[in-house]
Amino acid sequence: MTDALPQGATIGILGGGQLGRMLSVAASRLGFHTHIYDPTANPPAGDVAHLVTTAPYEDNDALFAFASTVDVITYEFENIPTLTLDTLEDHAPIRPGREALRVSQDRLVEKDYLSGLGLRTADYADVPDAAALAIALTKIGAPSILKTRRFGYDGKGQMRIADPADADAAIAGMSDAPAILEGFVDFSHEVSVIAARGLDGAVACFDPGENVHRDGILHTTTVPARLSASQRTDAILIAANILNALDYVGVMGVELFVTPEGLVVNEIAPRVHNSGHWTQNGCVVDQFEQHIRAIAGWPLGDGKRHADVVMENLIGDDMNRVPDLACDPATALHLYGKAEARKGRKMGHINRIVT
Amino acid sequence: MTDALPQGATIGILGGGQLGRMLSVAASRLGFHTHIYDPTANPPAGDVAHLVTTAPYEDNDALFAFASTVDVITYEFENIPTLTLDTLEDHAPIRPGREALRVSQDRLVEKDYLSGLGLRTADYADVPDAAALAIALTKIGAPSILKTRRFGYDGKGQMRIADPADADAAIAGMSDAPAILEGFVDFSHEVSVIAARGLDGAVACFDPGENVHRDGILHTTTVPARLSASQRTDAILIAANILNALDYVGVMGVELFVTPEGLVVNEIAPRVHNSGHWTQNGCVVDQFEQHIRAIAGWPLGDGKRHADVVMENLIGDDMNRVPDLACDPATALHLYGKAEARKGRKMGHINRIVT
Repeated sequence: MTDALPQGATIGILGGGQLGRMLSVAASRLGFHTHIYDPTANPPAGDVAHLVTTAPYEDNDALFAFASTVDVITYEFENIPTLTLDTLEDHAPIRPGREALRVSQDRLVEKDYLSGLGLRTADYADVPDAAALAIALTKIGAPSILKTRRFGYDGKGQMRIADPADADAAIAGMSDAPAILEGFVDFSHEVSVIAARGLDGAVACFDPGENVHRDGILHTTTVPARLSASQRTDAILIAANILNALDYVGVMGVELFVTPEGLVVNEIAPRVHNSGHWTQNGCVVDQFEQHIRAIAGWPLGDGKRHADVVMENLIGDDMNRVPDLACDPATALHLYGKAEARKGRKMGHINRIVT
Repeated sequence: MTDALPQGATIGILGGGQLGRMLSVAASRLGFHTHIYDPTANPPAGDVAHLVTTAPYEDNDALFAFASTVDVITYEFENIPTLTLDTLEDHAPIRPGREALRVSQDRLVEKDYLSGLGLRTADYADVPDAAALAIALTKIGAPSILKTRRFGYDGKGQMRIADPADADAAIAGMSDAPAILEGFVDFSHEVSVIAARGLDGAVACFDPGENVHRDGILHTTTVPARLSASQRTDAILIAANILNALDYVGVMGVELFVTPEGLVVNEIAPRVHNSGHWTQNGCVVDQFEQHIRAIAGWPLGDGKRHADVVMENLIGDDMNRVPDLACDPATALHLYGKAEARKGRKMGHINRIVT
């Protein structure tokens, strides 16, 4: 632990949503302070942080003041403006590093990067405009899916193309944003690996979880996932390959499609990931503490799982189920303290221990 | 959950040490805000609280302002001045209630109360002065232990009397404070029950833990404790008896001596308890969340244990072991973020999962 942050050091977190909130709690367990930076007032993470700055990501004075109070900077989302990073990086190390952000901020760059590592992805093509889409469809065919290259999450910025005749509607749905066409992957199920890499290059992975989505949003993650021993090994090797290539420090979520021909990388997220929330009740060191350990230069937890868990997101009206869920002795509640339960909004999650 | 606090409600906590800190984290998991009140600036709980008030317990204006922001008030220590409670109770419910504080603030009152419930305690006698001590020693004999009636914790305010000749030194050690003489209990080991009672009167207990002390401070708690099935039942019935008698709401720590003649109640603490820290890594709902659930009018967790755990306190220089402890995959770290590692100061604890 030569480069390890000492007790009482301060960790700066860009973004104060539920991920920042749970990172902040984990940091406190290791004796660190946290300073949350978020453009929105009263962010969920503010409830459990030592300091909160409310300012836009373009406010250089606020960024400078923030950076001067912290020993290391991390983030809960990948779409941080480049200029924000330029301002911050002179004052404190940013972990995970900028290469991971550059790669994951753009679906086309990400696919090129993953293919370049020899990993299998969906077929894809760059779609800067309608003409390119027509060409891409002759190559990739339908069904396929058109996605904005940047800023998509939880199914936003995506249009399915069931038939080439849908092309015009799909391109209109991109609102002139650069896009990428992705081929259909005939997968049996999706799994994700929550992987971590320390400052010393050590890699540790949690058991792969099996993900079910509803309306484009993660619904449940179940561990263990349905995987053969060799698939499990392959999933971990893929994740480690990506982390090492990026000289990554921190936790990453790697989504994989399970197909008869092998595992196909869907996407990567350079941060703690919704599909890793089960670790809070299944592991001695959860993904949030694992991330803090990594960016603080501490040894990683080994990722061992001591329980089978089903994680379920509580979205919008699901909050009405909380009184019932609170009565279930096998259910651990994790609520985010958000004031308004809007449709499609992640309000909390539960981890149900399976015995 | 008719009387249940809703999402976004604020829980006021008197005392911002490590217990307040872990209560605050648990409250956040259920979607509550916390407001810490502590006379000392930058208390450990401040790192993970929504609001912090730094003011003396005698500052009525600060108490009033604090109470006006909270929906319910709880505390992390039992020695809250009576006048503080008088001021607060007009503005928000105090849970656990004042009867529990009245009983547990004074060792003599507590012993009388427990005896009145038909529970076994050490032999004891009121010792207002040296003359009373002489009489008490003829009744109780030596070895015995003289303790201040109020404000003792972690072995402070206690003098052992190995021989009646020690009486003068012992009474001098009380510095004129009212005292109580307690007879020697020939016990094989000490266990504690972390018990909870909800607003609806439901009671739930965690598995008894076995405690080992060093220099008067808790060193380790091990679950399961060495108890026969009937001793285990007895321990839980004793705890439930006390909770029901006090019409208690919240978590209580009940320390018991195991003797050949049965369980002897050592003392009770009307709050979350150091010997219950193991629940953080052994239960779906830990003692901190259990306490928040109780005082918020939520259903209690059932206390089921999913792992064997050894909790060990990190005191003073034990913090030098953190780099090694961080490498042990079975060890969960819980550090309190205290700036200075003074001798005898509780700096953190570990929960080691036993497999």
